[in-house]
Amino acid sequence: MSAGLVSIEEISKHDSPSDCWLVIDNQVWDMTEFAPSHPGGPGIIHRYAGRDATQAYSEVHAPSVIKDNLAATKLKGRLDPSTINDEWLKPPPTAPQANTPAGDNSQPDLDTIINAHDFELAAQKTATAKTWAFYSSGANDLITRDANASLYSRIWFRPRVMRNVRTVSTSSTILGLPTTLPILISPAAMAKLIHPDGELAIARAAHSKGIIQCISTGASYPAAEIVTSIPSSPTSGSQHPFFFQLYVDKQRSKSAALLQKLHQHGNIRAIFVTADAAAAGKREADERLRADESLASPITGVAARNDNKGGGYGRVMGGFIDPSLHWGDIAWLRAQTRLPLVLKGVMSASDVKLACHHGLDGVMLSNHGGRNLDTSPPAILTLLECHRRCPEVFASLDIYIDGGIRRGSDVLKCVALGATAVGLGRPVLFATAYGQQGVEHLIDILQDELEVAMRNCGVTSLEEVGPWLVNTADLDHLVPAEEAHPYARDWRRGKRERGIKAKL
Amino acid sequence: MSAGLVSIEEISKHDSPSDCWLVIDNQVWDMTEFAPSHPGGPGIIHRYAGRDATQAYSEVHAPSVIKDNLAATKLKGRLDPSTINDEWLKPPPTAPQANTPAGDNSQPDLDTIINAHDFELAAQKTATAKTWAFYSSGANDLITRDANASLYSRIWFRPRVMRNVRTVSTSSTILGLPTTLPILISPAAMAKLIHPDGELAIARAAHSKGIIQCISTGASYPAAEIVTSIPSSPTSGSQHPFFFQLYVDKQRSKSAALLQKLHQHGNIRAIFVTADAAAAGKREADERLRADESLASPITGVAARNDNKGGGYGRVMGGFIDPSLHWGDIAWLRAQTRLPLVLKGVMSASDVKLACHHGLDGVMLSNHGGRNLDTSPPAILTLLECHRRCPEVFASLDIYIDGGIRRGSDVLKCVALGATAVGLGRPVLFATAYGQQGVEHLIDILQDELEVAMRNCGVTSLEEVGPWLVNTADLDHLVPAEEAHPYARDWRRGKRERGIKAKL
Amino acid sequence: MSAGLVSIEEISKHDSPSDCWLVIDNQVWDMTEFAPSHPGGPGIIHRYAGRDATQAYSEVHAPSVIKDNLAATKLKGRLDPSTINDEWLKPPPTAPQANTPAGDNSQPDLDTIINAHDFELAAQKTATAKTWAFYSSGANDLITRDANASLYSRIWFRPRVMRNVRTVSTSSTILGLPTTLPILISPAAMAKLIHPDGELAIARAAHSKGIIQCISTGASYPAAEIVTSIPSSPTSGSQHPFFFQLYVDKQRSKSAALLQKLHQHGNIRAIFVTADAAAAGKREADERLRADESLASPITGVAARNDNKGGGYGRVMGGFIDPSLHWGDIAWLRAQTRLPLVLKGVMSASDVKLACHHGLDGVMLSNHGGRNLDTSPPAILTLLECHRRCPEVFASLDIYIDGGIRRGSDVLKCVALGATAVGLGRPVLFATAYGQQGVEHLIDILQDELEVAMRNCGVTSLEEVGPWLVNTADLDHLVPAEEAHPYARDWRRGKRERGIKAKL
Amino acid sequence: MSAGLVSIEEISKHDSPSDCWLVIDNQVWDMTEFAPSHPGGPGIIHRYAGRDATQAYSEVHAPSVIKDNLAATKLKGRLDPSTINDEWLKPPPTAPQANTPAGDNSQPDLDTIINAHDFELAAQKTATAKTWAFYSSGANDLITRDANASLYSRIWFRPRVMRNVRTVSTSSTILGLPTTLPILISPAAMAKLIHPDGELAIARAAHSKGIIQCISTGASYPAAEIVTSIPSSPTSGSQHPFFFQLYVDKQRSKSAALLQKLHQHGNIRAIFVTADAAAAGKREADERLRADESLASPITGVAARNDNKGGGYGRVMGGFIDPSLHWGDIAWLRAQTRLPLVLKGVMSASDVKLACHHGLDGVMLSNHGGRNLDTSPPAILTLLECHRRCPEVFASLDIYIDGGIRRGSDVLKCVALGATAVGLGRPVLFATAYGQQGVEHLIDILQDELEVAMRNCGVTSLEEVGPWLVNTADLDHLVPAEEAHPYARDWRRGKRERGIKAKL
Repeated sequence: MSAGLVSIEEISKHDSPSDCWLVIDNQVWDMTEFAPSHPGGPGIIHRYAGRDATQAYSEVHAPSVIKDNLAATKLKGRLDPSTINDEWLKPPPTAPQANTPAGDNSQPDLDTIINAHDFELAAQKTATAKTWAFYSSGANDLITRDANASLYSRIWFRPRVMRNVRTVSTSSTILGLPTTLPILISPAAMAKLIHPDGELAIARAAHSKGIIQCISTGASYPAAEIVTSIPSSPTSGSQHPFFFQLYVDKQRSKSAALLQKLHQHGNIRAIFVTADAAAAGKREADERLRADESLASPITGVAARNDNKGGGYGRVMGGFIDPSLHWGDIAWLRAQTRLPLVLKGVMSASDVKLACHHGLDGVMLSNHGGRNLDTSPPAILTLLECHRRCPEVFASLDIYIDGGIRRGSDVLKCVALGATAVGLGRPVLFATAYGQQGVEHLIDILQDELEVAMRNCGVTSLEEVGPWLVNTADLDHLVPAEEAHPYARDWRRGKRERGIKAKL
Repeated sequence: MSAGLVSIEEISKHDSPSDCWLVIDNQVWDMTEFAPSHPGGPGIIHRYAGRDATQAYSEVHAPSVIKDNLAATKLKGRLDPSTINDEWLKPPPTAPQANTPAGDNSQPDLDTIINAHDFELAAQKTATAKTWAFYSSGANDLITRDANASLYSRIWFRPRVMRNVRTVSTSSTILGLPTTLPILISPAAMAKLIHPDGELAIARAAHSKGIIQCISTGASYPAAEIVTSIPSSPTSGSQHPFFFQLYVDKQRSKSAALLQKLHQHGNIRAIFVTADAAAAGKREADERLRADESLASPITGVAARNDNKGGGYGRVMGGFIDPSLHWGDIAWLRAQTRLPLVLKGVMSASDVKLACHHGLDGVMLSNHGGRNLDTSPPAILTLLECHRRCPEVFASLDIYIDGGIRRGSDVLKCVALGATAVGLGRPVLFATAYGQQGVEHLIDILQDELEVAMRNCGVTSLEEVGPWLVNTADLDHLVPAEEAHPYARDWRRGKRERGIKAKL
Repeated sequence: MSAGLVSIEEISKHDSPSDCWLVIDNQVWDMTEFAPSHPGGPGIIHRYAGRDATQAYSEVHAPSVIKDNLAATKLKGRLDPSTINDEWLKPPPTAPQANTPAGDNSQPDLDTIINAHDFELAAQKTATAKTWAFYSSGANDLITRDANASLYSRIWFRPRVMRNVRTVSTSSTILGLPTTLPILISPAAMAKLIHPDGELAIARAAHSKGIIQCISTGASYPAAEIVTSIPSSPTSGSQHPFFFQLYVDKQRSKSAALLQKLHQHGNIRAIFVTADAAAAGKREADERLRADESLASPITGVAARNDNKGGGYGRVMGGFIDPSLHWGDIAWLRAQTRLPLVLKGVMSASDVKLACHHGLDGVMLSNHGGRNLDTSPPAILTLLECHRRCPEVFASLDIYIDGGIRRGSDVLKCVALGATAVGLGRPVLFATAYGQQGVEHLIDILQDELEVAMRNCGVTSLEEVGPWLVNTADLDHLVPAEEAHPYARDWRRGKRERGIKAKL
Repeated sequence: MSAGLVSIEEISKHDSPSDCWLVIDNQVWDMTEFAPSHPGGPGIIHRYAGRDATQAYSEVHAPSVIKDNLAATKLKGRLDPSTINDEWLKPPPTAPQANTPAGDNSQPDLDTIINAHDFELAAQKTATAKTWAFYSSGANDLITRDANASLYSRIWFRPRVMRNVRTVSTSSTILGLPTTLPILISPAAMAKLIHPDGELAIARAAHSKGIIQCISTGASYPAAEIVTSIPSSPTSGSQHPFFFQLYVDKQRSKSAALLQKLHQHGNIRAIFVTADAAAAGKREADERLRADESLASPITGVAARNDNKGGGYGRVMGGFIDPSLHWGDIAWLRAQTRLPLVLKGVMSASDVKLACHHGLDGVMLSNHGGRNLDTSPPAILTLLECHRRCPEVFASLDIYIDGGIRRGSDVLKCVALGATAVGLGRPVLFATAYGQQGVEHLIDILQDELEVAMRNCGVTSLEEVGPWLVNTADLDHLVPAEEAHPYARDWRRGKRERGIKAKL
């Protein structure tokens, strides 16, 4: 790799699509050939033609991406710092409007944050309008997104007093792996939008606090970079475990290759296959703001774009997801990986039963944070449906649950109702605004809330809890009891239409 | 028809009720004799005596109306454009107050509209206060109008995942006619109030998108003009189908004549007879604003007026509707038309059963958009009542439903519960503010929403769906289960009053 | 009675408590002796000593009161109008603060009022703050006051269509008396606070519209003056009927005398005995404003006063009401009057049954407009309780209902559930702000609303309606089904306390 | 004790931590040695070094505390008043921010206060922000705090009319002791924060009104000082009774000693042991404001402090409470005291049954004012749970209830459902802002409200009331009916995980 110095005068000459050099991290690259195939579109590259694009690049790309995508011959040398002048330091003419902060940009001190809501408010103030829209939005009228959280407020505890609760333990195991809390970090895309460390910060916090992160296919860092960023234990040599969330690609070979690549990392210990993204929901707040077309997913290679429906990231970047994924594909997935398989996005007891039948290791009851199908049921209702319709499934596979969990007491309610662990999505993204420390602080808060709730309920370990601990009477009438009989609509309709036609 | 040019100087002389010429579309008409019998009242004509009334005319009348109502001898010639001066171009002294826009008049760009709510907000900003009041208002305290929409938010889906949903089809048939969506355009009066193209724009959009429009008796264009505005298929020669909504006139012969006239148009394929307008509701927002008395219905010939109750269009223009219409009249209706008959405005399972008994081809469960009887039940409750009390009716006739449907997911819920199709009323009126393109955009949005909902529910065709797809547990307790026994009030009361009288 | 003229110079000399003349309606009275026994307290009289008190007097007293209370010898002559000067016309120094209007005092035109809510808003704007507080307030947290109205919104109609509803009749009979509407004017105190004509205006409107007014014991005109203000029919000689509401006095002889006096008026046709005023509720808005101590009830002679709890009119003027009234007193009441007896303020099915047992002619289900016992049940719940627990009572006596009725549709719901008629209290008071015309307009509105509701429900006469017309499913779970078994608390407690004492 | 006069000149010299004199109540103390061990931290003492600290001291300490904690030798004499100058009278440089009033500091006149809500609003205006936060806050999202109050609004009375209610009595007995009302003053900490008389004012009011105060372990006056402040009856010599609320200390010997000390006061007649404080809740409003570290509990000796979670008084001062307290400790408690024992903070019928089993004299159904475990059930639900699941407990022990009671009608509902008495916490604290008079006024208000409710319900004594008086239908579905079967989670999980491990 050449290390020759290049002056800004020289660089500035290569300022057009047909001759396009960019400076990134003081390295001068010729991107003329690459730009047209840039997953984020050529526009953003051409905007920086003949300029320094380090900042724009680092906002969306991991440092490793450029080396993986450009031949070494494209490196023209290093920026000669002695040639930098005032003109060079100016930003390019226009900046995308959605890049301004949604709030007044004043981030509260981390030690004033005492619950997950505080993190959300802080993020709303400091994230860009587009990031806020992407993270906070849900499908259509937000009914499911909001019910996810509000239903927990309608479950009363049935606390027991006068029990020795001097010591409590929140520890548990997930798929045989120890965890300090029955909390998973749910997969969520593009954590780098809110902090340059993105998923790396989350991984470090998960490691330091002893919980497991499930990496999203849409992560803003390559999975390999995330999992290798956590060192092995200096004493035992053991590795901190991760899970990986998989969107199955329409081109199945791509998914197969991705799994092969992931298998190189022994600390990826389970695959969570997303089942509830057959179609991307209309997340209206996100659609209304233009997508930054320079954004691309390092794992899928898909770039953001704007189309006639708007600029919703989840929709425009999820086009590769295979809507034909079906139960028959479980066998194919098993052939690709020997890791435990968890199906994420199950929304009915009937499908939990099918998951048992197909030998899955777990299901995550989830409605994708209310982002795909509005008025899909909050996962806690699906959990109660399992109690009513198929309690035997709790002995057959692990049940995870996410969506709307904001308090340690919510966690306790889910575990009491049979969940092995709960997933946290948006709260972690919002905490990431403070980097690793923010996520650690969030986990500390939840652990404290969980311990307080356990003590005040009179329990000292998660092994003790069960449905007797909660009063779900305010929700029970919402839980479907029976599998409705298939509706013999065709026969009736056929009969009727014959009659009509006869009359016409 | 004379084509001689007439100067503005000449025209201006005929500026009184006793000698009254008007210019419309550059044609100069003598309206002295016609004015007193003008359905919209003579006032508006006299206001333009000696002037150009083109704009005022086109706001409320279809171009064809004038020729159908005035003898050719009343045409005095064509306006001589060379004589036009500044004075001529000024509007007449006063304009009706309610004609000012309700909002700030800035219509958002159509491509920023991403759901039906957006269309409503846009209409609220740009329609005149009176138009907004007429379209948006409902009876009394708006309880039914608002519940129509809100109840859909209380129905959860029971989505199934892991089904191959690569291709989905929203197509269906209505009374044997193919439709790309299980959506009808519900009859709604006076679309011209919001756009000069009115029902013509709606017809063009329905045609281009492959759905069926049900023309209102109160349309602002003559039915013939609407149905003939859509050309036959250049390839097959087939005609795009329409339905027609009929208010039966107190003078039955008028209704009979209207049906006869409609039969001339082979593409009118069914008659929807309105049953829920025995009395016009008090739509208070509309009553509070003065009616524009120049407005008249081209089909019924009834003009708007103001009276001591206010200026509610529906009430003041619906006086011709026969409140004595009853089940015995079905036979009379069948005698007037061989088209399929659908009864619109059914609000109880008991009446659905009677409709079966009387051999109707369909019913539309509807409460007239909550415009006639406040606290009449939302149609979705009536649909559930049919499931509970008389599921056999689904095999006997088509069931349509309207009121409050705003999302593709609402459509899917109705179809899952056995509706053949849903009607859309206000959303189409609001979209008409953008003309044909607006209505097309609305249909596109609903189709997209419906497809997303179908995929995320795990279904690929409307033939597959059934009640198993929805969880109506939050509404089930509201559904009446039994026909209450008739209350033997007379007997008791008689007995009691005899006692009282004996004592007096 | 002297008719000599008295100059203002002369009058002005008698300007102290010990020598106190007042001018009322141009008559000059010596009130020195009377003032100390004035039911409204001497203060207000002394304030006008040596002055013209006509306006202050007419705001609270009927014209006849003065002649009934002062000996003719106290009339000193007539005001000599020729002596009036500017000084004389000035008001006395200070006016009670609560006498200023609650709103901006601009009364909307009567023809812009289209429902009962409009009357309430208009009254809020123009009544004095104290009058508004007295009329609108309810006990404590207003839960019952507000639920009275809101529960009607939770009852759906079950409308039937396709019935000949060309002619509808709202007429009915109450205790054998014809009425054009199933609506009574509920007794409400002190209508003069909002309009000088007070109950006289209400009586004239009731007469002209053919409905019956129930005169309150707390009326601001003597009952005799009200009932004699309506002329007999010039053709038949028949008299328009009235009812009278009786608060039984702690001094029973007073009530007996009052009934004797009322019997002189043949058009008083029933006595409504109030049972739900054993203790006056704390109507907080009213307590917070000082009572006008010049106010007194012409029927009871009780004056308003302020005490350490506040200035709530109902409480401070209701001290004479007998809290010992009990079922055994029905016999006493029957001995005092041969008129039909209706018990007003029944709040449980158990007491309706007792009313039957005691041979009452009717009950009025009422919670006193939510003014006495907060969280007492809305009368519609009590009506439903009768259906559930003792439907036989509907054959035994008339059931009336009041509280929260604001729409003709509310009236229809009550009648469908077996009420003979409904009472209207506050709406009539608010309409009285416009005098007789206002009350007539209110009755017209309700009749129109009732007719529209009847037509759209498919019924033409009140004889036809019954419980089948309404869907009360949203309220049914609130209706108590059983008489709870008396709770054997004494026995348990005695047992327990013996144990505790043994231990101490 | 020396009484020599000391000049301000001399005092001012001792103005450093190493030589630190303070003036308190005109006495000059050398606090150099004491400051480091001050429970409230040395900071506050050093701040007043060489100054007069009387005001700051009296805001948080009872007068007796200083004499109990400092040797007489530390008294350096009395302040020489003749030496006071302007400089001396100035406050020290900085004041803690949280010490400013939360509102505009204008306290309404006591005679304008007519209900408990008014007291709360007045306190919000005049208390310091920190005091307001401490008193008003609840755990986490305030769901339990707010539901405590709102559920009472959902219970309807079933009033009976026509009963002789001339005389009513609200008197009752609690643990054999007479009380004029079925109302206890619930233990609540640090009443001095809102008024210098603190618990003394409450005690005087309770005595004058004939009700019983339960003194908190966290009272701002020593229990002895409170109970001895009320004189014996001059006629009978009998003493007004008190109860004492006990937090059991981790160092059990401390609790034993405290009980021994309390036994010296014959008018302490029962011990309420708190069971629902195994962990202090996160009362977020309180945590967000810094604790005043000069504050300390005179009974426990624990001082306030700030830590990394915030400054919540309840949490930081409750560290001594033993989370290991369990049913087995009842025997130990019985060994320490022969007084009746009531368990406070029971939140399930199961624990009421256990309390019977362990021979407790009573339970107080309470969730600590919603301050410890959010979504713990409102006590009224637990009371209803007892009716459903174990009605026999009402015969075995007294049941008290607190949380959210704001009206006399709430009291009546609780008693009707079997509570012997209700506790009032926050309302009393808020009333204490007006000292003894305020608390007396609050009790008068509640007595009046209770009497009005009793009369309007048709009852004259608390012995008469029972569950028949209330309609709890709106809450009944929330009451858990059964003890859920323990959930055999371990077995299932073990089975499952074996399977997973076998696969790995």
